[in-house]
Amino acid sequence: MSLNTFGHLFRVTTWGESHGPALGCTVDGCPPGVALSEADLQPWLDARKPGTSKFTTQRKEPDEVRILSGVFEGKTTGTPIQLMIENTDQRSKDYGDIAQSFRPGHADITYHQKYAHRDYRGGGRSSARETAARVAAGGVARAVLAQVLPGLRITGYMVQMGTKGIDRSRVDLGTLGDNPFWCPDPLAVPEWAAYLDDLRLNHNSVGAVIEVIAEGVPAGLGAPIYGKIDSDLASAMMSINAVKAVEIGDGMAAAMLTGVENADEIRMGPNGPEFLSNHAGGILGGISSGQPVVVRFAVKPTSSILTPRQTINARGEEVDLITKGRHDPCVGIRAVPVAEAMMACVLLDHWLLDRGQTGGARGVIGLKN
Amino acid sequence: MSLNTFGHLFRVTTWGESHGPALGCTVDGCPPGVALSEADLQPWLDARKPGTSKFTTQRKEPDEVRILSGVFEGKTTGTPIQLMIENTDQRSKDYGDIAQSFRPGHADITYHQKYAHRDYRGGGRSSARETAARVAAGGVARAVLAQVLPGLRITGYMVQMGTKGIDRSRVDLGTLGDNPFWCPDPLAVPEWAAYLDDLRLNHNSVGAVIEVIAEGVPAGLGAPIYGKIDSDLASAMMSINAVKAVEIGDGMAAAMLTGVENADEIRMGPNGPEFLSNHAGGILGGISSGQPVVVRFAVKPTSSILTPRQTINARGEEVDLITKGRHDPCVGIRAVPVAEAMMACVLLDHWLLDRGQTGGARGVIGLKN
Amino acid sequence: MSLNTFGHLFRVTTWGESHGPALGCTVDGCPPGVALSEADLQPWLDARKPGTSKFTTQRKEPDEVRILSGVFEGKTTGTPIQLMIENTDQRSKDYGDIAQSFRPGHADITYHQKYAHRDYRGGGRSSARETAARVAAGGVARAVLAQVLPGLRITGYMVQMGTKGIDRSRVDLGTLGDNPFWCPDPLAVPEWAAYLDDLRLNHNSVGAVIEVIAEGVPAGLGAPIYGKIDSDLASAMMSINAVKAVEIGDGMAAAMLTGVENADEIRMGPNGPEFLSNHAGGILGGISSGQPVVVRFAVKPTSSILTPRQTINARGEEVDLITKGRHDPCVGIRAVPVAEAMMACVLLDHWLLDRGQTGGARGVIGLKN
Amino acid sequence: MSLNTFGHLFRVTTWGESHGPALGCTVDGCPPGVALSEADLQPWLDARKPGTSKFTTQRKEPDEVRILSGVFEGKTTGTPIQLMIENTDQRSKDYGDIAQSFRPGHADITYHQKYAHRDYRGGGRSSARETAARVAAGGVARAVLAQVLPGLRITGYMVQMGTKGIDRSRVDLGTLGDNPFWCPDPLAVPEWAAYLDDLRLNHNSVGAVIEVIAEGVPAGLGAPIYGKIDSDLASAMMSINAVKAVEIGDGMAAAMLTGVENADEIRMGPNGPEFLSNHAGGILGGISSGQPVVVRFAVKPTSSILTPRQTINARGEEVDLITKGRHDPCVGIRAVPVAEAMMACVLLDHWLLDRGQTGGARGVIGLKN
Repeated sequence: MSLNTFGHLFRVTTWGESHGPALGCTVDGCPPGVALSEADLQPWLDARKPGTSKFTTQRKEPDEVRILSGVFEGKTTGTPIQLMIENTDQRSKDYGDIAQSFRPGHADITYHQKYAHRDYRGGGRSSARETAARVAAGGVARAVLAQVLPGLRITGYMVQMGTKGIDRSRVDLGTLGDNPFWCPDPLAVPEWAAYLDDLRLNHNSVGAVIEVIAEGVPAGLGAPIYGKIDSDLASAMMSINAVKAVEIGDGMAAAMLTGVENADEIRMGPNGPEFLSNHAGGILGGISSGQPVVVRFAVKPTSSILTPRQTINARGEEVDLITKGRHDPCVGIRAVPVAEAMMACVLLDHWLLDRGQTGGARGVIGLKN
Repeated sequence: MSLNTFGHLFRVTTWGESHGPALGCTVDGCPPGVALSEADLQPWLDARKPGTSKFTTQRKEPDEVRILSGVFEGKTTGTPIQLMIENTDQRSKDYGDIAQSFRPGHADITYHQKYAHRDYRGGGRSSARETAARVAAGGVARAVLAQVLPGLRITGYMVQMGTKGIDRSRVDLGTLGDNPFWCPDPLAVPEWAAYLDDLRLNHNSVGAVIEVIAEGVPAGLGAPIYGKIDSDLASAMMSINAVKAVEIGDGMAAAMLTGVENADEIRMGPNGPEFLSNHAGGILGGISSGQPVVVRFAVKPTSSILTPRQTINARGEEVDLITKGRHDPCVGIRAVPVAEAMMACVLLDHWLLDRGQTGGARGVIGLKN
Repeated sequence: MSLNTFGHLFRVTTWGESHGPALGCTVDGCPPGVALSEADLQPWLDARKPGTSKFTTQRKEPDEVRILSGVFEGKTTGTPIQLMIENTDQRSKDYGDIAQSFRPGHADITYHQKYAHRDYRGGGRSSARETAARVAAGGVARAVLAQVLPGLRITGYMVQMGTKGIDRSRVDLGTLGDNPFWCPDPLAVPEWAAYLDDLRLNHNSVGAVIEVIAEGVPAGLGAPIYGKIDSDLASAMMSINAVKAVEIGDGMAAAMLTGVENADEIRMGPNGPEFLSNHAGGILGGISSGQPVVVRFAVKPTSSILTPRQTINARGEEVDLITKGRHDPCVGIRAVPVAEAMMACVLLDHWLLDRGQTGGARGVIGLKN
Repeated sequence: MSLNTFGHLFRVTTWGESHGPALGCTVDGCPPGVALSEADLQPWLDARKPGTSKFTTQRKEPDEVRILSGVFEGKTTGTPIQLMIENTDQRSKDYGDIAQSFRPGHADITYHQKYAHRDYRGGGRSSARETAARVAAGGVARAVLAQVLPGLRITGYMVQMGTKGIDRSRVDLGTLGDNPFWCPDPLAVPEWAAYLDDLRLNHNSVGAVIEVIAEGVPAGLGAPIYGKIDSDLASAMMSINAVKAVEIGDGMAAAMLTGVENADEIRMGPNGPEFLSNHAGGILGGISSGQPVVVRFAVKPTSSILTPRQTINARGEEVDLITKGRHDPCVGIRAVPVAEAMMACVLLDHWLLDRGQTGGARGVIGLKN
């Protein structure tokens, strides 16, 4: 990771501000010969797109992605893929308030402190609009993964909204598309809806916990010690706007386990090793074990709220600030497709990195050894 | 981060295995002219050193660090600093068991799967002995920080051992050195001691939560979007052996807050902005705000326990395995100095990176603006 | 350098193909607060633009650069600067010949061998059109350099066209704009014009030697051992299309010198050290000495010629190939602004890198200096 | 490349000064399972070792390399390989002269200017002793290449010493070991010996041109645009001490060719494409073509000579300086094994990088090829 680039071999460099003419990313290091078109990318962007329910910002952006390079006659060429999304809904408005005042919980003050000069419109570079570029890049990663790891399945969902959790016994991932929250527990949905509606009407917002699971990840991905796949996942998820914590497997709860409980015991199955539990979240020593990779992260509540908060402006004057505009009462909702995209990028990156170093050769377990 | 290197400008590359002749690291990009000697580094290694109480591994290693390059006449030269620690306590023993069998919770199986050929002695490269190199590198970072940011103070401590927490109202960081747990709550110490002793005698182990706080961090460190200081801290902490989760500020608990609660309101103090709370953990939009930087992480219980666990060996045979040897019942204890070292490295790295890009110029707040 | 990115801190990632909808680059790591607009960049692109004389390709491209991000209210913000140039002159034509046949001297065959699938239109990614993005990035670098190193002057010119050299005693850099060759020797111009016209009419082309000199480079830029400023310049220039050799200072001729001759002796002048000669080209041990930095490189003749050459096609059939189209008889001409741009990027990158590591502190020579 | 590291996937980080206790390197990203021992590396170091003839420095160093990590039971493990060479011949002597005075042609003054504080003993970090670490790393690369590209052959030799060239028609690479100059023209050897002896006795030195050829390089290595294999070779060779120019294929002479002459025409041979010439030096568009890769570079004369030269010291005083000590009259001689090592590292690095991105898939030419 270096400033605005992430990835080792599959490298994504994003650019663009919330209210500039466009935003996008360059995807470098993509394998050649992979079928790819805008139509492969657009559905992922549509899933992230705001304005689809009252629970997400009412900003209307078509978020149409264009491929400007790196694809020829429907297939990748191995050269950089430029993905651009034009910003069409740049409302002409008076930014007088936030141009000078620092919205609490936002990066306004730190961007001012670091750069002295900043694009304050809609948060500029620190806006969650940047994540549209990640989702587009994730779409490229998925197209490659579909070819090289056809058994892989990445699924993100919300497991907690504010103080409201789910009942894991009721989880049905097939119902994620049926509600505006990516909630996997159908019975929790109406409760969440009422809860969030209430917060919204009270000019408030709330945080969330998102879980992303990747099934079908082969053993052997990850590059210890500082290119561990869990380190890279932690970095990738923490880089998403508003994320304050990242867990792998049991995460923080691992602190309360004993060694006897935590040991994921191993038995020999017909197709190789089988673990009797997955406290580790599919990663041991920074390398994937073949079990599902499980990542969870916390998103703080949307900082833009209609309730006045105390702050200062650049002149050092103390002011009260209401953040008007079109905002998500739970920004965690839209983090779900973003997190899936980051998972896809990290997994492909490590798959390529492993192929580079080891050629994908694997230590045999069992008879042939 | 790339394989065994971390950092952007202050780059640390570690090398070495648990039972090889030596281990160490190359610290590249260090500013020149900084006073440095082995005597500056050794105390940090001594703090991490095993064998100092019955609660850490009884392996006896002097862990004497030697500076092989990059320092001349007591000062850094700006060229790579090589730090080497010889392994002296490489007991001759029969590794028959673990040479072939995969210890549950360890990286044995994933290293085998990825590399086919591995140094199984003491976990080889995946051993926590690698962290000695980080602590040495952290010592270099601290020497530089003492010069460029004299007001900086980094403090790590354990806030939870297994199911036992602390009472935050009793925290006294001045007592950390008085107990073998880096526990900041003196009244919790005897309880923890009894708890851990009991686990140890029952051939068990337990996890922990560590907190590291950095006070005196200037505003403006961090490089959005993918070089965010919280992303880099997440990656750095997650790369420490046995870490399963990383939190910034309120961490996972941020998910349960409302926007009204979470907003760290700002007032104007005599020396600049003052925040009324620090839910953000000192970082907004990936950039430090001048508040204390607060990181917390969970360490899983030591996987090496004397209680037999089910596993398989490389021949695919199912076996029961006891991990003999000299092991920490709570490996989290020794993670404290390691986490402090990682914090020091990340902060210095970002301080240098920021100086490179912005020259350390800062947006003024207040009259002079 | 990694695939399509160059630079350590001032990082440029280019993208785009010759006949795709657009090409461009992301400039990351730019200092904030620097005045920048399209008007600052366009003159550099105009200098490189084809179609301005009969000695360069007749392809008509306005090469208008747009800034899509990273600049707000006329100043850089420190976030990624996206520069885009649309390809407008994408003639609809039959590429039947070169779609399948490999033009000798071109990268057609190696792109085919490596990627299997390639954009053959106009050379795709390997086209010299990519250098427009470099020139735009160089314009950003120059805007920053003008602020941080106001005394710096970068000048590129052609010192040899084919077998025709210049008389160094007649060099007048003020005349570079008076001829279509960036030739610094006014008396050589008519000779070169006749020579090149003859080659062009004979369906041939010719190589060239370009020299770039940077005056006003401060001492202390460069990061030994593998980030030496001469290593980075060598890499930067060699990455320009058709370049086959790079020289620093005396270059290849240094091989024929004796140690007595080659020693650039040093005297003490009123403003510090003064060298009595500059065989070293301003770089000692990979670090700038304060003397002018002198780089020279050879460009091979344009490979696209109207004279038939023997080759094969993808079916393995032997064919004779004429490369029709609008081509430069001496592609070296247009390499001049590109080389200046690369020099600007490398110098700024090293200036930032040095500021990051050393803070720009310098060893004093003499009593006060 | 970043400060003291080179390579994309096969990354080498060197450390150490001329008169420090040791020097060495970390080789990261090496494939696992490759047979490797000190005995595989020592011969390459012995070839570079000084003190073997009157034409190289009489400093006596055993240059014994030790493998401290990354190899277990005779095979690489895929973890970092630490290679250390102890400096044994650190003569105790008075450095009074050069501690303060800047030897012309050396990096003394630029290190002083950049870092203010430097290890002046024997040139410190800028000494050619650093190249021992590269040669060791190159030995690792060769061990891997022998396994993955068994047909590859890398050969370096001197084609010009000062004003004395070779007769290419007499070249016999089998005779390289028969003379102290790596001269491939047996009839030139006595002439060179007399020439160099004369220079040496006259307290002088001279430059050289080295050529390195790699036969058996597969087509498809190289990563345009900024990871071109020729860019990386240029950077790698230019980073060797005293190198002032790098040529690929025809190099500077390409400037004098016409397009008709320069086109390497292609015919179809029994095993695929065959080129009728190799002006390109085996690289087209930054990607290897399957032809021999040909690199040539110029080494300036040894700057340490017994003839007094004018210079200044750190106090700004003008002095005359003789560089006593044990020096090579033609430092180019010892650059030959270094250049071979760099070639090996770059080729392996690109082979791994290509395997990562493309999986080594290749575009077919002809019906089946």
